[in-house]
Amino acid sequence: MRVHVALTPAEFPGLALGDRAAVVVDVLRATTTLVAACAAGCARVVPVADRDAAVAAAARYPVGEVLLAGERGGAMIPGFDLGNSPIEYVPERVAGRTLVFTTTNGTEAMLHARRASAAATAALVNVASAARWALDQGRDLTVLCAGERRAFSLEDAVCAGLVVGRVLAEAGSADLTDAALAAMRLGEHYAERLDRLAVESEWGRKLARQGRIADLDACLQLGTSPHVPVFDDGVIVPGPRVRREQERVR
Amino acid sequence: MRVHVALTPAEFPGLALGDRAAVVVDVLRATTTLVAACAAGCARVVPVADRDAAVAAAARYPVGEVLLAGERGGAMIPGFDLGNSPIEYVPERVAGRTLVFTTTNGTEAMLHARRASAAATAALVNVASAARWALDQGRDLTVLCAGERRAFSLEDAVCAGLVVGRVLAEAGSADLTDAALAAMRLGEHYAERLDRLAVESEWGRKLARQGRIADLDACLQLGTSPHVPVFDDGVIVPGPRVRREQERVR
Repeated sequence: MRVHVALTPAEFPGLALGDRAAVVVDVLRATTTLVAACAAGCARVVPVADRDAAVAAAARYPVGEVLLAGERGGAMIPGFDLGNSPIEYVPERVAGRTLVFTTTNGTEAMLHARRASAAATAALVNVASAARWALDQGRDLTVLCAGERRAFSLEDAVCAGLVVGRVLAEAGSADLTDAALAAMRLGEHYAERLDRLAVESEWGRKLARQGRIADLDACLQLGTSPHVPVFDDGVIVPGPRVRREQERVR
Repeated sequence: MRVHVALTPAEFPGLALGDRAAVVVDVLRATTTLVAACAAGCARVVPVADRDAAVAAAARYPVGEVLLAGERGGAMIPGFDLGNSPIEYVPERVAGRTLVFTTTNGTEAMLHARRASAAATAALVNVASAARWALDQGRDLTVLCAGERRAFSLEDAVCAGLVVGRVLAEAGSADLTDAALAAMRLGEHYAERLDRLAVESEWGRKLARQGRIADLDACLQLGTSPHVPVFDDGVIVPGPRVRREQERVR
């Protein structure tokens, strides 16, 4: 099994994903929000590039069943129903709904991941379940770090590296690219000090300046969720819950 | 002081370098070879993009004073005088000579670095001296990792991170991008186990397969050289030796 981590979005256009499994990571906050949306019982999440594409996509679903969600530059989009805070995504708001979703960085990575044979999303909150999903695909794996405006984001590399580390530990051996190994080392460094990412990462400091401490607390937690949002024909749906019991049986 | 590390060449075209100091890193082997060439007393190194540009550049220097040097895919270029092994660059071969130099990855990074206000090259062998040079520029710093065919290379990120760590330690504080901080963490991890890079990095394994163990030994040594090859009007020249005595006095 070969494992690669695309550390920056600059790499996405050149990635050969056709035969591979892809995992998208945008810890602060898009993929954490997706896990929250699936846990809260949303029907599906439709990732789109921008506000105009969101309005067009929403028109294809019955009024009342669809919500516009996302952010630009970390802020709510005027006229949208939901922002990009995982703590907004509660059953009262999203259960049974279709969410049309656009964010500054995360959705670009999601749109690229649709080229893969199988794709899912990971955040720190579902890292063990996402690694289990990746192993279950029986394919080479590419983790796409959403980053920030085409640049590297520390928390995404850390999360990607924790996925890689768990895949390697369960698979016994794997062929890691230098980028996958570097991410794994960063994951090892921060695994026991995830709270430092709120201070040491650029997005962490930005969210703190915006007063979004509850979001940081929600995003910088390791591996508690069984939910793995997966791609199905270009749309993200709540995948099968990956239960720890299943992991032990395997 | 702001410090950034460009972890992959994909980032080079978009870098704003005009007001900054730039340090190019290609540990295996181009920048290690440059340090060796300067230590052996070469007059200058002219970085060029490819074989044809090398032949054209060499024609501008007197026959007998110029040597063609470099590699493609790790192998000697037919008709060239020197390859890209630092142990070839001894005074008997290069003292007083102009070296026209082209390598698979390193020279592309060098050509980008010429856009900076000041530029130098670093390898593990001169990491302390290169950090001292960077501090002496009194500018924001960008470290360019040459990588491998536009992708991330572990050993370059480690070396970049060791430069960043020393700059931060001496400056007292600095504003690090996420990429600079991640590189610093990788530097911390590998500083006491540089020999692992021969096994864990893709280029390390490739050189080992080619039997270039002596090259790996020469490249994976930390900080023993006072030589900092610096850019002067687009050409690389042996910079002032940065002596440890000077460091202590400051």
